[in-house]
Amino acid sequence: MATPPYQPPVADYTFLFGEAFGLDLVARASDGELTAMDATEIVAGAGEFAASVLAPLEAVGDREGARLEDGQVRLPTGFADAYRAFVDAGWITAEAPVSAGGDGLPGAVRAGLGEIWNGSNAAFALCWLLTAGQIHALDATASDDLRETYLTKLVSGEWTGTMNLTEPAAGTDLGAIRTMATPRDDGSWAIRGQKIFITWGDHDVAENIVHLVLARTPGAPDGARGLSLFVAPKVLVNPDGSLGERNAITTVAVEHKLGIHGSPTCVLAYEDATGYLVGDLHGGLAGMFVMMNSARAGMGFQATGISDRAYQQAATYAAERVQGPVQGRPAGAPVAEHPDVRRLLLSMSSKIFAMRALGVYAADLLDRADAGGDAALAEFFVPILKGWTTEDAQQVTSDAIQVHGGMGFIEETGVAQHYRDARITTIYEGTTAIQSNDLVGRKVLRNGGATVDALLAQIDETLAQLRGVDHPVAARTADRLDRAVATTRRATADLLAFASSPRDAYAVSVPYLMLLGTLAGGWMHALAVVAVLRHETLDEGDAARLTSADFYGSHHLPRVHALADTVAGGEIA
Amino acid sequence: MATPPYQPPVADYTFLFGEAFGLDLVARASDGELTAMDATEIVAGAGEFAASVLAPLEAVGDREGARLEDGQVRLPTGFADAYRAFVDAGWITAEAPVSAGGDGLPGAVRAGLGEIWNGSNAAFALCWLLTAGQIHALDATASDDLRETYLTKLVSGEWTGTMNLTEPAAGTDLGAIRTMATPRDDGSWAIRGQKIFITWGDHDVAENIVHLVLARTPGAPDGARGLSLFVAPKVLVNPDGSLGERNAITTVAVEHKLGIHGSPTCVLAYEDATGYLVGDLHGGLAGMFVMMNSARAGMGFQATGISDRAYQQAATYAAERVQGPVQGRPAGAPVAEHPDVRRLLLSMSSKIFAMRALGVYAADLLDRADAGGDAALAEFFVPILKGWTTEDAQQVTSDAIQVHGGMGFIEETGVAQHYRDARITTIYEGTTAIQSNDLVGRKVLRNGGATVDALLAQIDETLAQLRGVDHPVAARTADRLDRAVATTRRATADLLAFASSPRDAYAVSVPYLMLLGTLAGGWMHALAVVAVLRHETLDEGDAARLTSADFYGSHHLPRVHALADTVAGGEIA
Repeated sequence: MATPPYQPPVADYTFLFGEAFGLDLVARASDGELTAMDATEIVAGAGEFAASVLAPLEAVGDREGARLEDGQVRLPTGFADAYRAFVDAGWITAEAPVSAGGDGLPGAVRAGLGEIWNGSNAAFALCWLLTAGQIHALDATASDDLRETYLTKLVSGEWTGTMNLTEPAAGTDLGAIRTMATPRDDGSWAIRGQKIFITWGDHDVAENIVHLVLARTPGAPDGARGLSLFVAPKVLVNPDGSLGERNAITTVAVEHKLGIHGSPTCVLAYEDATGYLVGDLHGGLAGMFVMMNSARAGMGFQATGISDRAYQQAATYAAERVQGPVQGRPAGAPVAEHPDVRRLLLSMSSKIFAMRALGVYAADLLDRADAGGDAALAEFFVPILKGWTTEDAQQVTSDAIQVHGGMGFIEETGVAQHYRDARITTIYEGTTAIQSNDLVGRKVLRNGGATVDALLAQIDETLAQLRGVDHPVAARTADRLDRAVATTRRATADLLAFASSPRDAYAVSVPYLMLLGTLAGGWMHALAVVAVLRHETLDEGDAARLTSADFYGSHHLPRVHALADTVAGGEIA
Repeated sequence: MATPPYQPPVADYTFLFGEAFGLDLVARASDGELTAMDATEIVAGAGEFAASVLAPLEAVGDREGARLEDGQVRLPTGFADAYRAFVDAGWITAEAPVSAGGDGLPGAVRAGLGEIWNGSNAAFALCWLLTAGQIHALDATASDDLRETYLTKLVSGEWTGTMNLTEPAAGTDLGAIRTMATPRDDGSWAIRGQKIFITWGDHDVAENIVHLVLARTPGAPDGARGLSLFVAPKVLVNPDGSLGERNAITTVAVEHKLGIHGSPTCVLAYEDATGYLVGDLHGGLAGMFVMMNSARAGMGFQATGISDRAYQQAATYAAERVQGPVQGRPAGAPVAEHPDVRRLLLSMSSKIFAMRALGVYAADLLDRADAGGDAALAEFFVPILKGWTTEDAQQVTSDAIQVHGGMGFIEETGVAQHYRDARITTIYEGTTAIQSNDLVGRKVLRNGGATVDALLAQIDETLAQLRGVDHPVAARTADRLDRAVATTRRATADLLAFASSPRDAYAVSVPYLMLLGTLAGGWMHALAVVAVLRHETLDEGDAARLTSADFYGSHHLPRVHALADTVAGGEIA
């Protein structure tokens, strides 16, 4: 037994691009340059590539892991070839905006691609995720010189990118960063310090690596306001663009981790390494936040991708595993027909659809914000997408093990890898608590819940649409969502009442984030019900969407009420 | 960094034995032969042994794992010495009933011991758990000959025991067992077949292993009613009790698992191995169920133990990890003071207390049933204890990783081991679905909810006691528990309404089990509140118990309402 072939979720993306949100999302985002059908083709192409090239390396990556040999990190067998194929197929360029020489695909389409890279091989996908994040950050903040020297090489895929924030004494608390950058006469900076947890911090799949490094400068203010951002390449670049000497950056260690073994997590020592200032002095957080926002949304796609891969494996096993003959019955049914196995599979798939739909919705919101739309709503969904999908991915990947029974606990089965891989997602790119504090502090309390109100008003519109349809699933979905919205209003009022006692608010910020994520998931399903019931006749796929929505409403949405009780309590002294 | 020293939870057991249930539970169970104070000493002694001998081998066991070498399983460094010390200290004999030559300790005390063995080293504890289960099974069913030859050696700890049920085509479905036992002229049986997932199926820490094997006999009825139980030793026993030749049982493989690496999970091939019938022909399930019930309760103690070990490590880390200096503040606070870290720690510890208390309560119920008490209630709690504690252990051990941030994902930190180890607990000894179907089918639907009513009536008594105390935590606890009881009555009525549509009942049996477990946990906390508020003055430990109860009521108990919504929906078509 081993992980079955990867099946890209193309049908869901067709539905999400073209009709779930009541319009052709892709056409709107691209001003008509692309349609949902075009986007489906792109996603299907990515899916084929992922299934044939990336997915077969998932177990290899887990088994071999990344290794440090004589100061150089070696990636698992096949990763270098896969990376070259990935670049040659244009999948890095596909991520880049037009301004950086990329394809400028709408965010919704990139959400689909992000899920597919992660679903087929999450450890590999981290290279894409960080390079893509750095492309967006440099595109937003870098000087023309830096753009020409570094950004072009990232967009072409010749070089890869990393994000260097964390230090042994500065994790969540960026203000504690001690890495020091000292100006040199030639305009470059000498960077000295140690960075830890650097994903894809060293490897052998591309000829150079561009590190984006947060560091303090002499005389800078204390805390996060004194941080500046630097580009520091693994190999120095000559004035003519050719590669020169190795920079003074040493890979001290590669971590031995619970999961994503194929992704090298490095400890990097900067020993007066050469770096170049990106953006304004002391303005390092601004650029880093562009990268971090991109990475946080990317985590949503990773959570969805890993969850779906785990689900696919569980569904395949449940369909193939036939129960032995029981008491006279000559042959049993596949375990997928057992009521509890069916429950587990529907629990997983209904969560995954909600996660996937929210990823598309949030990515599209960010596009709309860039085009002058509601930036507050777009920013509001970043922590929800990151926090909620990654937390739910823990349960989904755990359920996938459970469906396998004892076989799920055997490593060779392959399903445990998804569970181990998924565990990091609630931690890196800001823990769930960080997401929740961002949400509650900056995006709810600060504007008195105005953004929540805007969201709930939108959900009310969907409710009105649902009420206009005569179908039992529409009626049940509306009843449940209505109740959940009312509870969310109450919970938000309870949270706002804690404005003057921040400990109370932050003691329930994670439950509040999970409440909003769970509600948003219910809304995504409600939108799907509305879209499906516009069809004149319902086919098998439509029926499955209705069942999924009904299941979500019965099994997952009620959690909103429990979480609201928790939010109301504030901190328990 | 590594897992900190194990701290046995002696204070909780003192409280549970002596006052939480409003009486000296140990004195009642032992007819006054022992008191809660005596039991505390026993548990404290076990704790010392576990902390000094077993806990230091936990990480070693994970790292080295069990290995198959030339047909013989080798356990990790130190396991053999630890096992001898364990036996010499009398901890196997402590588990055995008086009728089998053991100490005959009350179940409540054995619950405490079980948690401690598992908390200090779950992989090692499985040897204890299976040997103990077999002792109880043979004590209940074996002939005098078998008792003398095998049971005495198990009770002395010279030999260890295993449980052989599962086959490649017979997991949950015992009726599909194909292993065949054919009678020989000398009264023994020739056993032929393959058994998988045999915990501690082979090892090098004791001179012999007693396998308890479910097999079919020629001409036996189909299905589970045709199964008989056999004892088959690894090494044959001569008439004088000395060890003879190896039996025809081969260890084909040792599994490579997600967790509990130190526990050898074996594939055993029986090639006309010699076995002896235990109990009645075709009555194999009866004896196996004695062992399985013991093992299922043991799983509750394992879930509690692993959870507590993970909690201890998280609490230690959070107390020691100091945030770097932030914006002018010269030094930060330990992360334990951050609102969300405090939430995670209280979430864990309040669950663990509930799990621990329910373990003691359920074990005592089984004692009382043996002494002529309410057997239905005792049997009712076995699946709840097993199912609910093991499911919650997944979240608790996940939270322990989360408290560590990025360090939690690094294997050397040691906390990921608890997460990996815990994952098996919802699967073996009957998955959560099996527990839930047992609960719903045999213990709720079959008697029209009478046992649930009996339980709720008891909770109502606790509510009356809570209402009689003037304290805000008592008032809040009563309000919440009252609401949860009402919801449980409604959910039970909804479930009973599915009596004629079993698929509906079994499609929500896991949510219903989790509802009852969560409610029972709230009841345990309510009993603790009543007991604590009997004290004239409240010390720090008392205050912590009230906070824990209050937290559980605010963060965990509300889940009852969400689960009730799910139960009401039945199967989603």
